[in-house]
Amino acid sequence: MAHEISPLAPTQFPDMPEIVGVALSAAATGIRYKNRVDVLLATMAKGTTVAGCLTNSKSRSAPVDWCADGLKQGKARALVVNAGNANAFTGKAGVATVKAVAKAATTLLGCAQAEVFQASTGVIGEPLNPGPIVNALPELAKSANASSWNMAANAIMTTDTFAKMATVKAKLGGKTITINGIAKGSGMIAPDMATMLVFIFTDAALPSKILQALLTKSVNPSFNCITVDGDTSTSDTVLLFATGAAGAVKDLKSAADARLKPFAKALDSLCLDLALQVARDGEGAEKLIEIKITGAESDKAAHKIGMTIANSPLVKTAIAGEDANWGRIVMAIGKSGEKAIRDKLKIKIGGIVVAAKGMKDPAYKEADIMPHMKGREIKIEADIGVGKGKACVWTCDLTHRYIDINGSYRS
Amino acid sequence: MAHEISPLAPTQFPDMPEIVGVALSAAATGIRYKNRVDVLLATMAKGTTVAGCLTNSKSRSAPVDWCADGLKQGKARALVVNAGNANAFTGKAGVATVKAVAKAATTLLGCAQAEVFQASTGVIGEPLNPGPIVNALPELAKSANASSWNMAANAIMTTDTFAKMATVKAKLGGKTITINGIAKGSGMIAPDMATMLVFIFTDAALPSKILQALLTKSVNPSFNCITVDGDTSTSDTVLLFATGAAGAVKDLKSAADARLKPFAKALDSLCLDLALQVARDGEGAEKLIEIKITGAESDKAAHKIGMTIANSPLVKTAIAGEDANWGRIVMAIGKSGEKAIRDKLKIKIGGIVVAAKGMKDPAYKEADIMPHMKGREIKIEADIGVGKGKACVWTCDLTHRYIDINGSYRS
Repeated sequence: MAHEISPLAPTQFPDMPEIVGVALSAAATGIRYKNRVDVLLATMAKGTTVAGCLTNSKSRSAPVDWCADGLKQGKARALVVNAGNANAFTGKAGVATVKAVAKAATTLLGCAQAEVFQASTGVIGEPLNPGPIVNALPELAKSANASSWNMAANAIMTTDTFAKMATVKAKLGGKTITINGIAKGSGMIAPDMATMLVFIFTDAALPSKILQALLTKSVNPSFNCITVDGDTSTSDTVLLFATGAAGAVKDLKSAADARLKPFAKALDSLCLDLALQVARDGEGAEKLIEIKITGAESDKAAHKIGMTIANSPLVKTAIAGEDANWGRIVMAIGKSGEKAIRDKLKIKIGGIVVAAKGMKDPAYKEADIMPHMKGREIKIEADIGVGKGKACVWTCDLTHRYIDINGSYRS
Repeated sequence: MAHEISPLAPTQFPDMPEIVGVALSAAATGIRYKNRVDVLLATMAKGTTVAGCLTNSKSRSAPVDWCADGLKQGKARALVVNAGNANAFTGKAGVATVKAVAKAATTLLGCAQAEVFQASTGVIGEPLNPGPIVNALPELAKSANASSWNMAANAIMTTDTFAKMATVKAKLGGKTITINGIAKGSGMIAPDMATMLVFIFTDAALPSKILQALLTKSVNPSFNCITVDGDTSTSDTVLLFATGAAGAVKDLKSAADARLKPFAKALDSLCLDLALQVARDGEGAEKLIEIKITGAESDKAAHKIGMTIANSPLVKTAIAGEDANWGRIVMAIGKSGEKAIRDKLKIKIGGIVVAAKGMKDPAYKEADIMPHMKGREIKIEADIGVGKGKACVWTCDLTHRYIDINGSYRS
């Protein structure tokens, strides 16, 4: 199946700077795809710390289990990623594969096995032969360089229609540090769920505990606020590596240290940028949908209401049809299970009040909203009328192409 | 949009017997549809008891609020249903409409307002003018008769592609009683959610408390186990009326009385029959999917796992594509949040083991399952491997027609 670039893709990609201590290379090993890079090696300088957020799935993949163990140590020297096979639901063979890859990398780089992080994306339930990856590693290690960000972002794609990258700078301890991130997610060629992989690298010097606290805080309002189809992958992985090349920050004791604010803010913005790139590349997406919830009982309640709207097939198909069907938004709020006062609900689409006080706004005319509905970016706001909880989530519309991609891949 | 009859429709409809004490009639009032019946009146004999199960939505419709009040009394003399307008999210005007209809019926039938039950299905957020319904009531009351079941089932349809009816008989207190039910659900013409309405009538003599206990028990494994798109209506309503014409059962104190078993069993089977008819008429449905879960931590956990599989767009599109993509079933089990042991999971499709012990079954060949995948009824079984909880749920596949129906209704 041919995949044209998503109509929602960014019009230009960032020029990715180097991160001192990080080297990248990619190879085409033919795991599933032909004539394209499908294995990424990133090597990191000694002393690199790491933090991560992994899928909450109860049937997570072998490399996710492996990363969970490695995160306990908090140190990293290498990242190996392959596309085309998720190494999920592959039993003991799957565990043997991650061990074989870790061993090969360890020998090459002279590091501990727990310092080799891994991720896999692609088909579920097919054994992943470690051979092609292991055989590619020596040449990958030799050719790794500081500038191959674009190739790295391409090597982790499955049926993404564009490579996802972002970069930000921030002040930390008097120095300017850089954070680079690459991501994949939301497209498919050969059939599986839209695994999201995100790898972020910085030259900041931060202990893994602080790094973890900052990452968790950034992941919640970004990656945890996007959805394409509500289906959680066995393999979702976000890893943040800090090489420390920019030099230590004195007496840094906790993530709450005020000196970390610019870094935290930069990390937030980078995570949100990558998350929105994933939503923009949602399967079959024609429109990006932003859903802002205010007035919920709590932020958690607001998030649940937002995600219920974002995952409603009726809301998503209506938007695909450029129909300002706010009744379906009312329905989704009602089914979320969170406290809502029907007669205080207020719903806006494209900034125009469509419903308030338990009924359609008397001043609302559908024609006023049509230009907004015909655009690429749809904005929905709902005030629930019960408290101060708020959240913002993003999704894409549900189109015929979603069904084509997921229902007829073998044709 | 033209709606052909669902390919999953029953090949023959039941011959509905009379229920002593119930009279039915329908009229075409043009609320939204032209040239078809859209208002149903059912009148019930004095002494009729009633039980009901209503939507859990937090933004429920005016008639649902009205029924909730009526159920507190447990007595019924009339049921008025309209199709084409849900009278949901209509503010004070919506409440005024149900009051006006109740008042008109009360005057005609000489009963209390709380004995007039109401339901509405159709567009959300548009005021429902009581005029056409109120004006139709006198003629409806005059023409009501014991045999108009087919017309009644037609009058409550929105874009259902077939009228849904079922009838069963059971012994109760030495007499043979009859239970008739009609339902609508899962189709759309003019845009809204697939409200499910179910009305069940029996000549059994049962106090409303016992009736309620029996109904609640029957609704859980039937209507609460079907899903088309996971979207909960503002208006879902199941009502069970018992006229008592078959004569009282002596000293009946609770729903646990052994003499009620045949009635309860008959009610169970009627509810399941109607529920499956709704699933078979799911929007765009080409295949009925049965999902049996065993070995979960509890029945509740099994239900949640089953519904997570049933609502997964990736599972539903795969089945639409006749693809035995069991990896997506693993994914859905993993995301349900319920306890599952990956290495003990066992998944069958069409009775054939596809995955066990944390990996693809070595003996499984995709070709063996293809004839099953090409059929109209798909059976999925998953043993979770952690306990004795079980559940069975039903859904339909996700096809292009679902998107056509819900995304382009105005075209």
